[in-house]
Amino acid sequence: MPVTVIPVIISGGSGTRLWPLSTPDQPKQFHALGGEQTLIQQTALRLADAEGLSVAAPILICNYRHLDIARAQMAQIGCAPAAIVLEPFGRNTAAVAMTAALMAQALDPDALIVLMPSDHRVSDPAAFARAVTTAAAARDHIVLLGVKPTAPETGFGYIEVGAPLTGPVRAVARFVEKPDLAAAQAYMASGRYLWNAGVFLFSPKIMLEEMRRLAPQVAEAAEKALSRAQRSGEAIALDAEAFADCPSISLDYAVMEKTDRAAVAPLDAGWADIGSWSALWSEGTPDDLGNVVNGPVELLDATDCLVWSQGKTVGVIGLNDMIVVQTDDAVLVLPRSRAQDVKLLVERMKAKNDGTKGGGVNE
Amino acid sequence: MPVTVIPVIISGGSGTRLWPLSTPDQPKQFHALGGEQTLIQQTALRLADAEGLSVAAPILICNYRHLDIARAQMAQIGCAPAAIVLEPFGRNTAAVAMTAALMAQALDPDALIVLMPSDHRVSDPAAFARAVTTAAAARDHIVLLGVKPTAPETGFGYIEVGAPLTGPVRAVARFVEKPDLAAAQAYMASGRYLWNAGVFLFSPKIMLEEMRRLAPQVAEAAEKALSRAQRSGEAIALDAEAFADCPSISLDYAVMEKTDRAAVAPLDAGWADIGSWSALWSEGTPDDLGNVVNGPVELLDATDCLVWSQGKTVGVIGLNDMIVVQTDDAVLVLPRSRAQDVKLLVERMKAKNDGTKGGGVNE
Repeated sequence: MPVTVIPVIISGGSGTRLWPLSTPDQPKQFHALGGEQTLIQQTALRLADAEGLSVAAPILICNYRHLDIARAQMAQIGCAPAAIVLEPFGRNTAAVAMTAALMAQALDPDALIVLMPSDHRVSDPAAFARAVTTAAAARDHIVLLGVKPTAPETGFGYIEVGAPLTGPVRAVARFVEKPDLAAAQAYMASGRYLWNAGVFLFSPKIMLEEMRRLAPQVAEAAEKALSRAQRSGEAIALDAEAFADCPSISLDYAVMEKTDRAAVAPLDAGWADIGSWSALWSEGTPDDLGNVVNGPVELLDATDCLVWSQGKTVGVIGLNDMIVVQTDDAVLVLPRSRAQDVKLLVERMKAKNDGTKGGGVNE
Repeated sequence: MPVTVIPVIISGGSGTRLWPLSTPDQPKQFHALGGEQTLIQQTALRLADAEGLSVAAPILICNYRHLDIARAQMAQIGCAPAAIVLEPFGRNTAAVAMTAALMAQALDPDALIVLMPSDHRVSDPAAFARAVTTAAAARDHIVLLGVKPTAPETGFGYIEVGAPLTGPVRAVARFVEKPDLAAAQAYMASGRYLWNAGVFLFSPKIMLEEMRRLAPQVAEAAEKALSRAQRSGEAIALDAEAFADCPSISLDYAVMEKTDRAAVAPLDAGWADIGSWSALWSEGTPDDLGNVVNGPVELLDATDCLVWSQGKTVGVIGLNDMIVVQTDDAVLVLPRSRAQDVKLLVERMKAKNDGTKGGGVNE
């Protein structure tokens, strides 16, 4: 009998480094970033054709103000979520995992939860489904999916793999958050480290046990917020007062780094976290001169640029290694090497105008 | 008794190098380019407070499709033109000068015409009026205003000054169109060359004589186009069929290079031809880091840039010597050193889409 999985899709994060496309009203998971479907649509469809798995209707967990856009985007792809859990504000991934475990426990205690960020790309969904099936063999663990590094990325979390558990699933030896370049290079060379893809597979029972044991404040606040939630159709609005008592802590810190049930299964499915404009360039399809373009763009002597238009003509002359972005709200221009500093620019604008003016500055 | 002058304002040229601000529907003379008033408004007001001159109501000569915007912009500054002559299409400045002479001959044959491009800036209008008064002393000549070069510009026309005529007015020894850099440097060093500011002072009688003698086809076609013009209020629409027979030739080529009545008077009035985005940077008021900005702009580590927004937020990180322009129609990004190539970009876009799409590509 195939394993039953419940996809739980986390719509968190503001995607500040993808300003001005990503805004508080429409963060990056609700944008297509070059594909046909938005990232959250791709995520909702990721396991749709999975072989060897029985895939239940997904649960979405998102900010309350994204209910309409989430509903609309799911309807567009013919996806009917089992529930859309609405957070009054973000409390990080530990609260999300606890909420997911409680929901799944009520829906189908024998199912496994696949907890997935909504803003990643996976070019090979069949390989993703195989990785989930592999991970499901270690159902008494909380299994992360880990990606073999292809570059010494300093913006990702790394997992050092430990002892073999079952098949290719291994225990986690340790977690490393955003190493410096030298460390990242050493990790990559060693072959013992994987990128933390932020995807978790676990049974509700194990997560509830571990959360209550290792992060009791999170467990208690999330349980209270869900039990007092307002329900309307598939929408479940967590109780804000109870949720406010929940510590804002990641699942990694709250549980994974403490539990002896942390495991990791390999993922080789064309995974990408499009966290910045330079990542969008790296993951894009370049022309002969290395330019990745979107929308009506006119290039004259441009090389290795990302030129992204949401609709209006963007003319570019004599640029190398640059990023040019045009949206309905704003324009952004910078060298690719400065892509991480978009966050800084947005924070400065927010400090100045408190998000009331201009290009929908992230909150 | 003061000299009477009739300002004739030429609204020609498409300002292609200022795309996307300058478009066929609203070329650069109808834009403010950073000031309070548009360039054509500044031109219409240039002689308004002139001392020692009797200034008649101006005549505008513009393309027929700019009638509404020209009327609106004149009304905005309380200027009532004596006439707005509408060209069905451009036939260069010889046709304009002939038309102006015919109009002035009918209005006031003793007045002198000040023929002025509508897209230049003059920071000191009083000095401009003094230059006109000086030039008026040589009323049996066609007098150009010449600007002492401050840089070896290769995009301007140069005038080599000849024998003294009256006061500082001198005969023209020869004209040089757009010299190469070495020649421009030599001209500047010699002290014998002035930039051709494109401003002409002449009596209708002399212009009619010289045009009929030296460019009879222009004289005949322009005269016919005006005599058959359709008049409606102050608007005078030249007859298209007759005007089509007019050779498209500049006043410099048709008359000035052939006549022995060419003269030049010095102009030292903060004259600037804002022909390109780099000129707008040069003529702008920079911040401490050399950046000239317009509109809602957020700069992070930018130096010596022009960042021009027509309304939406433009964020810039880590740029040097760059131009970034945002209008309602389009976005343009390029190094300042490539400012002349905007024309090339626009021509390429026009070839592709024939001006039917995108940012109002110039025709």
